[in-house]
Amino acid sequence: MRPKIYLFGDSITEVAFGDGGWAASLSNHFSRTVDVVLKGHSGYNTRWALKVAERIFPPVGSGGAPTLAVTVFFGANDACLSDRYAAFQHVPLHEYKQNLHSLISFFKKRWAETVILLVTPPPIDEDARLRHPYMENPSGLPERTNEAAGAYAQTCISVAKECGCPVVDLWTKIQEFPDWKEACLCDGLHLTETGNRIVFEEVVKILEEQGLSPGKLPAEAPLFANIDPKDPLKAFEGY
Amino acid sequence: MRPKIYLFGDSITEVAFGDGGWAASLSNHFSRTVDVVLKGHSGYNTRWALKVAERIFPPVGSGGAPTLAVTVFFGANDACLSDRYAAFQHVPLHEYKQNLHSLISFFKKRWAETVILLVTPPPIDEDARLRHPYMENPSGLPERTNEAAGAYAQTCISVAKECGCPVVDLWTKIQEFPDWKEACLCDGLHLTETGNRIVFEEVVKILEEQGLSPGKLPAEAPLFANIDPKDPLKAFEGY
Repeated sequence: MRPKIYLFGDSITEVAFGDGGWAASLSNHFSRTVDVVLKGHSGYNTRWALKVAERIFPPVGSGGAPTLAVTVFFGANDACLSDRYAAFQHVPLHEYKQNLHSLISFFKKRWAETVILLVTPPPIDEDARLRHPYMENPSGLPERTNEAAGAYAQTCISVAKECGCPVVDLWTKIQEFPDWKEACLCDGLHLTETGNRIVFEEVVKILEEQGLSPGKLPAEAPLFANIDPKDPLKAFEGY
Repeated sequence: MRPKIYLFGDSITEVAFGDGGWAASLSNHFSRTVDVVLKGHSGYNTRWALKVAERIFPPVGSGGAPTLAVTVFFGANDACLSDRYAAFQHVPLHEYKQNLHSLISFFKKRWAETVILLVTPPPIDEDARLRHPYMENPSGLPERTNEAAGAYAQTCISVAKECGCPVVDLWTKIQEFPDWKEACLCDGLHLTETGNRIVFEEVVKILEEQGLSPGKLPAEAPLFANIDPKDPLKAFEGY
């Protein structure tokens, strides 16, 4: 069976099959070689992710296909401030760190050979968050700040280093983009097509560094380019 | 495990995770409830599809998730004319009919409860095919005609009726669209974003008629809307 790449994360992952989404781009990139399977859970932090991981990822030996890689893309909700309207999503920084370690341990135990790719939370445009609250927000203060998101991003990077996992520093990458607040974010938090493109390109770059590129993986069924017009059925002999 | 919907077809299916692609839209539509798995094979006709079906679809009892539906979307290559440059892809109409029957029998035997949804080939813009040949074409004649595609579409519809399967008559649907040649096709054969949108909407409509809509399927893991801000962990009890 064709191998899989899982994308595990919050809403930024859940909507990644939307227009210009990075999951769709990744699926297209790995066409014929890998199934990209979305495990995006809107609103989730790492505490809740740990509650569901055991059940939503198939155990080895359940007849499924091998898992080549899994992206772990949490932190945007953990970084909600503890005294604002989204405080119920907040996870303290030290617990976020521990939870990421636990998630990595879980995946290492389940799939010893799988690339575990961490993605930091994106930066935050606080003014846009005030214009796009998802609950009543009479305080006039944003539920997230860029500074807090940055602290979670730094923690994510340090966990990746401690565990020997590759990491996309999305918080920094996006802020390197000109006019990033408008160009890369649609509501101060979620990604535009440009923001999605950055995630896609960074993830592809790291997967390639790990040896995972379409050209190096076997294609499922004979490719059209390898079918001889003079004897098409030859390509299917023994398949 | 989360159930699946397979998309089995030729290049129009293989590229369906591209920009605005119907596989991406379908994945997004069924987010949290279904994994949409692409089995698109560029250049394939029904004869070649039959050669690979046994191997690329998992047998029941292999520990995989249930398959809710499969789209069978072939005919564009079968309908290549037998005396033009793509003749090696041509499959005679009577064999196309028989091959569709064989594919349906295969899926019925493999997955007794699965919705088998046929999609006819799209219409052809012959002038555009002359501008976008995929091989040398000194003849000055297109390798496909709209009339031939229409005959394969009619055969696909009659097979669907004979087998009690739902069908999307894409050949007709697209031609109902104003300026369909430019609006729906990018090279006289493959779909633009508008063409992809038509496939997506027609497939969703039929799946809904068959009882397959996100609202009627269980979501994987608690939804954010069902997590109580005053007691978030309650939603995960027993999960």
